[in-house]
Amino acid sequence: MSGRGAISRISAKPEALTVEWANGAVSEFASLWLRDNAPEDRDPHSGQRLIDVADLPEQPQIRAAALHGDSVCIEWQSEPRTASFDLDWLAARACGAGDQHPETIARRWLLGAALDASRDFARASLAEFRSDRRLRLDWLTRLLQEGVAFLGALPSNEAAILEAVQPMGRVLETNYGLVFDVRCVPRPENLAYSDLGLGLHTDNPYRDPVPGFQALHALHCSPDGGDSLFADGFALAEHLRASDPEAFALLTRTPVPFQYRSKDAELYAERPLIQLSCRGEVCAVHYNSRSIAPLYLPARDCAAFYAAYRRFALLLRDPPYQLKFKLADGDLVVFDNQRILHGRTAYRSAKHARHLRGCYLTRDSVHSAAAVLRRTLGEQR
Amino acid sequence: MSGRGAISRISAKPEALTVEWANGAVSEFASLWLRDNAPEDRDPHSGQRLIDVADLPEQPQIRAAALHGDSVCIEWQSEPRTASFDLDWLAARACGAGDQHPETIARRWLLGAALDASRDFARASLAEFRSDRRLRLDWLTRLLQEGVAFLGALPSNEAAILEAVQPMGRVLETNYGLVFDVRCVPRPENLAYSDLGLGLHTDNPYRDPVPGFQALHALHCSPDGGDSLFADGFALAEHLRASDPEAFALLTRTPVPFQYRSKDAELYAERPLIQLSCRGEVCAVHYNSRSIAPLYLPARDCAAFYAAYRRFALLLRDPPYQLKFKLADGDLVVFDNQRILHGRTAYRSAKHARHLRGCYLTRDSVHSAAAVLRRTLGEQR
Repeated sequence: MSGRGAISRISAKPEALTVEWANGAVSEFASLWLRDNAPEDRDPHSGQRLIDVADLPEQPQIRAAALHGDSVCIEWQSEPRTASFDLDWLAARACGAGDQHPETIARRWLLGAALDASRDFARASLAEFRSDRRLRLDWLTRLLQEGVAFLGALPSNEAAILEAVQPMGRVLETNYGLVFDVRCVPRPENLAYSDLGLGLHTDNPYRDPVPGFQALHALHCSPDGGDSLFADGFALAEHLRASDPEAFALLTRTPVPFQYRSKDAELYAERPLIQLSCRGEVCAVHYNSRSIAPLYLPARDCAAFYAAYRRFALLLRDPPYQLKFKLADGDLVVFDNQRILHGRTAYRSAKHARHLRGCYLTRDSVHSAAAVLRRTLGEQR
Repeated sequence: MSGRGAISRISAKPEALTVEWANGAVSEFASLWLRDNAPEDRDPHSGQRLIDVADLPEQPQIRAAALHGDSVCIEWQSEPRTASFDLDWLAARACGAGDQHPETIARRWLLGAALDASRDFARASLAEFRSDRRLRLDWLTRLLQEGVAFLGALPSNEAAILEAVQPMGRVLETNYGLVFDVRCVPRPENLAYSDLGLGLHTDNPYRDPVPGFQALHALHCSPDGGDSLFADGFALAEHLRASDPEAFALLTRTPVPFQYRSKDAELYAERPLIQLSCRGEVCAVHYNSRSIAPLYLPARDCAAFYAAYRRFALLLRDPPYQLKFKLADGDLVVFDNQRILHGRTAYRSAKHARHLRGCYLTRDSVHSAAAVLRRTLGEQR
């Protein structure tokens, strides 16, 4: 808030309140916005709003604004009511005051090959993650900002993953179950369950909801092959936007069908490879060459779309953008499945077994775990 | 497919195959699209694609195309390989062949007050829903198309809802648990757990994922008040698009913050009130005046946004658009929580208890339940 809480002067006209903060910044609050946010219209216990926008006067006019200690009291014309706004509350909500949720701002990393998974990302032992709440908050915040984080020293049993992720968030059960086993099986229904290499991809773009976070516990690693690959899809998408804006635009507006069929599931969804928020920011990347279904594109549009799609695919294959890492037995990696692409090199299952156990977490639950911890520890960050 | 499977003539040039169907329709398939979809590049067991777009030649040129029985065989220049495409498969994927997933097309209903919940929507007893698979497929398809469907005659116990929804889809567990109880409690953390009336809303826009479907089991209804209200948000959004395109556009591109706080959860998400797919189609509506948080809008933009927001709120309050219905003990209503707004009239908890038990279902699991049933029953619809 950089000193905004301290105030130098307020002034009001019928349609807005102007606050000059001690640091020289000036904020304007529309009368309608103030009337909409009158604390008196929220339930004191739940904090929920008791009225609807249609209950508000259409053009409330401010009659007077006065400073009373740490709050501003507003009177309106043609209504007997007043409302009091805490100055710190106003400062935090001033337009341009800065995002109040810093962990939602991605710290992008483009050149993954220059990074070291153990050194440059959050990493902790399961024991310290469990026992040290400040460390856990830091780990979760870095997971949310950087998209990947690691734990080590998990017990080597199949129940360990669900115990380990319990303080991180809530498991999203799917047709694969609460957990899934990534290992080589005969006639797999999903090629992840073979010993083939897997190019960088995101999981389950055919699903709704697409899993928010993915956790993978290395129960048994192959000494030869089966290395993990990660890349930051947000950084790659922005790189594409800067270097080839036409290709970027095509990938954001062309719906791509994804499909998965098995004995007991039939999943289908259409998504752009690069998804934008209503602000125009990259908010998700969906890429999976195994589950992509035939495109519904007029023949005349194929050349341009395929050129853009290939361009993105070639970025994903380019080694400088890949964080390569060999998981050790007992490691757990957690990553944002709508941002971070993951893959693996091939291995030989006939020679060495490899077994990862995975699960998905809902996005809100991971953010909530971090936010509740921050509230408990009384931290602002 | 309207007779497209029958063929009259094929012809090819290097960059495309042209198929003239017996019904006179003409489809063009780009050479690159065909090369991308060569069945030989898919794993025969899982159906998953074995290659990536970057493995394809950039501009494959068709050398020859020939009809062999029910398939077209393509040869390419500068590659020794050929690929065979089944004609029915091509017909189904021809651009403009029509959506292969009819249940994903919303059958919108604007004037809810003219409809009768028991007559105009899918309704079945729990017993027939369980035992009759064709009826179940029809019920699920109508739920997906119309957004709301009803079951009756559930046993009046608290376990009944999870048993009833089991064939419909998978429960999305949240911080409220696997199920939540909508009844009046002292000092509620959510105003739904009071006896206040609730205007039309969607649940949990502060969550990610927003719940796809919601089920509510009426365990005990109030004889006086507590009526259920529903409206079709897709129809209302399209109505707004047609009648006030500026307001519609503002609501699709202004991110609105939603928030929920309780002892053990802290949820926050920004979403437009009307969400568009990358095709520009309305794909979700998010509206909840209880959990909306203060907008981050410059003061100068407030007037226009609030006018649009109010306009939409007034549509939601307008009785002709509301389907009003009194649930009876033992009823279960299921609805698309990203499309259908729901609400209730007030009731007097001191006089009459009211108890609904609810749960959320993931969107993909409901679609999958319908699609697997359709596959099992061998139906195309």
